[in-house]
Amino acid sequence: MDFLGIADEEFIRQDVPMTKQEIRILSLVKARIAPDAVVYDIGAGTGSISIEAARLAPQGEVYAIERSNEGINLIRANAANFTASNVKIIQAEAPEGLADLPPADAVLIGGSGSRLSEILETVTPKLKEKGRLVLNCITVQTLMQCIEFMRKHSDTYVYEAIQVQVTRLQQVGTYDMAKANNPIYIVTCWKK
Amino acid sequence: MDFLGIADEEFIRQDVPMTKQEIRILSLVKARIAPDAVVYDIGAGTGSISIEAARLAPQGEVYAIERSNEGINLIRANAANFTASNVKIIQAEAPEGLADLPPADAVLIGGSGSRLSEILETVTPKLKEKGRLVLNCITVQTLMQCIEFMRKHSDTYVYEAIQVQVTRLQQVGTYDMAKANNPIYIVTCWKK
Amino acid sequence: MDFLGIADEEFIRQDVPMTKQEIRILSLVKARIAPDAVVYDIGAGTGSISIEAARLAPQGEVYAIERSNEGINLIRANAANFTASNVKIIQAEAPEGLADLPPADAVLIGGSGSRLSEILETVTPKLKEKGRLVLNCITVQTLMQCIEFMRKHSDTYVYEAIQVQVTRLQQVGTYDMAKANNPIYIVTCWKK
Amino acid sequence: MDFLGIADEEFIRQDVPMTKQEIRILSLVKARIAPDAVVYDIGAGTGSISIEAARLAPQGEVYAIERSNEGINLIRANAANFTASNVKIIQAEAPEGLADLPPADAVLIGGSGSRLSEILETVTPKLKEKGRLVLNCITVQTLMQCIEFMRKHSDTYVYEAIQVQVTRLQQVGTYDMAKANNPIYIVTCWKK
Repeated sequence: MDFLGIADEEFIRQDVPMTKQEIRILSLVKARIAPDAVVYDIGAGTGSISIEAARLAPQGEVYAIERSNEGINLIRANAANFTASNVKIIQAEAPEGLADLPPADAVLIGGSGSRLSEILETVTPKLKEKGRLVLNCITVQTLMQCIEFMRKHSDTYVYEAIQVQVTRLQQVGTYDMAKANNPIYIVTCWKK
Repeated sequence: MDFLGIADEEFIRQDVPMTKQEIRILSLVKARIAPDAVVYDIGAGTGSISIEAARLAPQGEVYAIERSNEGINLIRANAANFTASNVKIIQAEAPEGLADLPPADAVLIGGSGSRLSEILETVTPKLKEKGRLVLNCITVQTLMQCIEFMRKHSDTYVYEAIQVQVTRLQQVGTYDMAKANNPIYIVTCWKK
Repeated sequence: MDFLGIADEEFIRQDVPMTKQEIRILSLVKARIAPDAVVYDIGAGTGSISIEAARLAPQGEVYAIERSNEGINLIRANAANFTASNVKIIQAEAPEGLADLPPADAVLIGGSGSRLSEILETVTPKLKEKGRLVLNCITVQTLMQCIEFMRKHSDTYVYEAIQVQVTRLQQVGTYDMAKANNPIYIVTCWKK
Repeated sequence: MDFLGIADEEFIRQDVPMTKQEIRILSLVKARIAPDAVVYDIGAGTGSISIEAARLAPQGEVYAIERSNEGINLIRANAANFTASNVKIIQAEAPEGLADLPPADAVLIGGSGSRLSEILETVTPKLKEKGRLVLNCITVQTLMQCIEFMRKHSDTYVYEAIQVQVTRLQQVGTYDMAKANNPIYIVTCWKK
């Protein structure tokens, strides 16, 4: 089995924002991806999450949904580099593109544009019992929308929310300098 | 396969300090534990790291080294609960207890008492080529000792150091309140 | 002049939550309290903010608004200890108690119960031109309510929001151990 | 009196690293600068700390010690802009330049090159009884050197060390995006 935890530098990313390694690891582990899982990666960006998910689910399928041409090209290039043949690339602005997908075991949302509530509405009936939805966000508004949705649907979902701040100690000569990554909220939701 | 990412509440811990879930996940992923790996868990505490390592290495062996009686009892109880039969418990204060172990693919150090330098000296010849050593620490002194050791042995090791701060959003009535965990340094070292 | 930056231990606090020193310092400096300022401290708790404000405004007046008996007793005791004679104590649940106060140069909100929107509505016409309102909060909901209010009243207010995470290095024997305080959001708002 | 807490944008800084507002505020408050204080600002950089110190000590004197030409020019320009006439600029690499200064009430160290231990040795006899020394640092090595010095001189000094992580919520359209500043260690030391 390949390892979870690909280094950031191994992905082609150009100027597209990419979930950093530690956040990727935590999000994927919290999504509890089984070897035969069906996974949606919404707002797939560079495809880094999709590719690691595909390695965790070698008998499953990962749907990488991304709206931009630049993103689509990067996902294609990265999936080829890592021979992640079970990554299916869908160019669409979610929730468009989700209707025809098979039911999901895990949904990861890294980018939602301004349509998070619609995405959550669309994804909920597609998520299997005990399925998990993991949201990464950097804005207070997105966090709040997700929490409000989960509180409103507390008969369906349980959620856990954390904020993760990773600081790298960059080696500069004889020093190790603290360099902060931006803090990310990770909301993990599972169907009761 | 069982999942990585056991919830903190699933371990029996009494008053023994325990590495929290997110730090456990990151440390184990950074240690790149293969299914047949030989792993040392030094300062095993409750055994939470050993048990998750044992699930990642079902054909391997995990040596849980712990000096206190209380810890040993907890490791035994937790290993039984999770039927982690490949956890070998060794009551010793490291570096004692390490000499006779088979060469390691991965070494996790969560507690080192005041003997970190000795432990690093002892572990280095036992760590296989490309093997990984992952240190968790909460004190500046322990971090610094590890960094100094790695810088002194830069012909043998490469290291990466990060600080991880996890804040939980605790659900209290209609509110989500930020509750900080203590920040942890994770130093990942690998033989060139 | 007395110094800003009283140590936490110098206040009597019993079990009442208290804004920690660094957050107190930043909130008071961001409130730009002039020597003759009229200040409201809403949800005054132990009175720690009121007392430091009173020292910054020796010719001004600080209104400490607090609903609980326990808080009122603590504010009284702490104000006496620091001979902060320009602290006026008002037992009320804000926005009650605010109507009759003189116009404010600075308003600090540390505790708002569940009535933040009402408090902001009531305080806005009482805050002088160029006056400053500083909110401390620990929940996402309170932060979001404040931001939404400020965005809705963007013709009146400009705001700056930060999150501050302080970690103490506690001296334990020969070690300095990282102990996290809970992160606090500080929203600073000023009338254009 | 002018206010403590000048905004970062009000300083001319070009490419010189500058202590950010919140760290400046905390460091200056922890240094307890009296109106007639003698202050050293070692590694003065843009002069931002010196200028705020000069406003806190209108009857005192602030010595801005800086080695680079670029820094010296910035300090001069910023001091002129803020008419901080009690800032005395000394071009030297500390501890050079310190010998002839009058005894200090407060010493702030923001940049120490690689000569921190020498600086601490030189500054200690010049710091008055109850005087305060405040160090800002971003590297583990500098933090450790300061802590080791203070522990070695525990008959002379008491210290408090904190790490401060400030995250700005940047307003981007309808969102508030978390943007981390690098975490800074602030070590406050005072003579018993």
